[in-house]
Amino acid sequence: MVDAANQLIVELGDRSYPIHIGEGLLQASDIFAPYIQGEQVLIVTNETVAPLYLGPIEKSLSRYQVDTLVLPDGERYKTLQYLNKIYDRLLEKRHNRSTTLIALGGGVIGDMTGFAAATYQRGVSFIQVPTTLLAQVDSSVGGKTAVNHPQGKNMIGAFYQPECVIADTATLKTLPERELHAGLAEVVKYGLIADEGFFCWLETNVEQLMGKCPDSLAVAIMRSCENKARIVSQDERETGIRAILNLGHTFGHAIETAQSYSDWLHGEAIAAGMVMAAELSRLLGWLPSDGVLRARELLGRCQLPLWAPSTMSADRFLDLMAVDKKVMDGSLRLVLLKAIGQAIVTSEFDHQLLRELLKSRL
Amino acid sequence: MVDAANQLIVELGDRSYPIHIGEGLLQASDIFAPYIQGEQVLIVTNETVAPLYLGPIEKSLSRYQVDTLVLPDGERYKTLQYLNKIYDRLLEKRHNRSTTLIALGGGVIGDMTGFAAATYQRGVSFIQVPTTLLAQVDSSVGGKTAVNHPQGKNMIGAFYQPECVIADTATLKTLPERELHAGLAEVVKYGLIADEGFFCWLETNVEQLMGKCPDSLAVAIMRSCENKARIVSQDERETGIRAILNLGHTFGHAIETAQSYSDWLHGEAIAAGMVMAAELSRLLGWLPSDGVLRARELLGRCQLPLWAPSTMSADRFLDLMAVDKKVMDGSLRLVLLKAIGQAIVTSEFDHQLLRELLKSRL
Repeated sequence: MVDAANQLIVELGDRSYPIHIGEGLLQASDIFAPYIQGEQVLIVTNETVAPLYLGPIEKSLSRYQVDTLVLPDGERYKTLQYLNKIYDRLLEKRHNRSTTLIALGGGVIGDMTGFAAATYQRGVSFIQVPTTLLAQVDSSVGGKTAVNHPQGKNMIGAFYQPECVIADTATLKTLPERELHAGLAEVVKYGLIADEGFFCWLETNVEQLMGKCPDSLAVAIMRSCENKARIVSQDERETGIRAILNLGHTFGHAIETAQSYSDWLHGEAIAAGMVMAAELSRLLGWLPSDGVLRARELLGRCQLPLWAPSTMSADRFLDLMAVDKKVMDGSLRLVLLKAIGQAIVTSEFDHQLLRELLKSRL
Repeated sequence: MVDAANQLIVELGDRSYPIHIGEGLLQASDIFAPYIQGEQVLIVTNETVAPLYLGPIEKSLSRYQVDTLVLPDGERYKTLQYLNKIYDRLLEKRHNRSTTLIALGGGVIGDMTGFAAATYQRGVSFIQVPTTLLAQVDSSVGGKTAVNHPQGKNMIGAFYQPECVIADTATLKTLPERELHAGLAEVVKYGLIADEGFFCWLETNVEQLMGKCPDSLAVAIMRSCENKARIVSQDERETGIRAILNLGHTFGHAIETAQSYSDWLHGEAIAAGMVMAAELSRLLGWLPSDGVLRARELLGRCQLPLWAPSTMSADRFLDLMAVDKKVMDGSLRLVLLKAIGQAIVTSEFDHQLLRELLKSRL
């Protein structure tokens, strides 16, 4: 549901919340007020984002007790150890159960701050302020919070919904090109799994997006969030349909884990993973060659990697994929494509073909 | 609701679960079967309990992939660091989302294993097998899971319900006297907060309980669980009435934190805290002297401490109480008594009287 003010409601019963999308939202001094119940606020952000947006936001919240925590920037800090720094600050500043956490940053900050909110004093409020394209279209919607474990990505976490999400497209102006591209990987994902019309729109408009055209970005963010919100509303805790949102993620997480979360960006790993999933779908006879080609071409135009690093062996891949959360009772389940815009989740595929795929270097 | 087989149902909608109470329940080979959906089980226990009960339980679960983790015994190990050992084992043994965790031990094992279950892969199943009186009457009922933080007890946690609780009274035969007494503190608590009839029964039967009379213990456990289940059903996430279960806990947690969770047992700190709460209630003119006297006497017959250690200053106390989870928007809320069997939660009390109370050494 979208109203005139570019607001989308994620429908989850008594856990429903709005996503505000627009340029300059953070400049409105009272944007947070309706979502803060208590008198304390902790803003969690990182070293990259803090110099750009922390000051003004802090100022606009001057009626509250505002504390801040600036973490180092990067997926490799999404650990229990850095999560603990959020707890430390909350306790040091004596935040009580009616506090509100504000996650100001990309997916890493959102995931960690959300998990801290889910678990501090068994649950306090939080607000997502995503400042990367990836976070605006993906990690800020759906209530998945987590930290990584050395043996697997997002292995420790909770389902926990924010009070609201504020996606200010103006923050994308300062986003590095490489992160913009990584965010587009998740945008393309929504076209691939559930929205062929959107995929076609992307084929036409990808250059505008790469050039940070504000109107095109707003359309892409809104359409991505609509798709995600619709799927999440049907299956909040991922017992069924929601799993299609993980297209490319089982491959991608294996790539990220192999690199200890330090080399490729999440979106880059997912782009490679989506091509691999499309290619496996083709090998299985489910997706026509033309579909794989279109996926490769669109992701290539986003300057994203189209295959796993050549240093990863098939055995290492299978090993890492075996601990993925999508494994059910020992059988590996993958998100695969029947067509552009039509994904399925299945463990019913020829595992020999998967092995062959991982041995090939396309 | 109690059926013929000594089973109590905690009514929480689609999160309802049964508590089985009885002697020798763990000897029934199929007691776990209805509550295990997947093919993997991790039993988490401690060095004290493992030699007594781990072997037989492991054997009775031989149809599953059974892994075990034996932690050191004690509240001071209820930390993020030891929680991480549970995640390590789960990942090392490749447990997937359909795994079941079994918490075999006292409150510390139950709280940590429950929190691990709440957060491993964003939530897996768990079964509580409490082996101490305190865990059987209290921490196994109500879904509170947590670990401690150096700056506060149970500061990191979640509300998460088990599949079932199996309270085998036979396990109390091996329970050290001191832990039995600590458990009785929580039993007495139910009388004090909500059940005057039970309090009178305890005054008559406390020697039988101290002597580990199985029938008396079964009555005390059932009545305590009934009281707790009734209160929790009304207010699962502690937004109101449930807070009365914390009688003595704000004082008690301050004592435990001051000792770094290493000296007094939880039940001992809570016993002292309940006397302090009763005494403050008297100073406020709410509870007759006779009520304080009866509380002191019954707890004294359980060989429990009746006041905080004399080494704790009033300032240290107030400091530690200020970070307690019951603090709302900066005002300290306490559970106090209007009568035996009638508790209230309030921040409306004369704080000067609290300071005087903490300065006095009764």
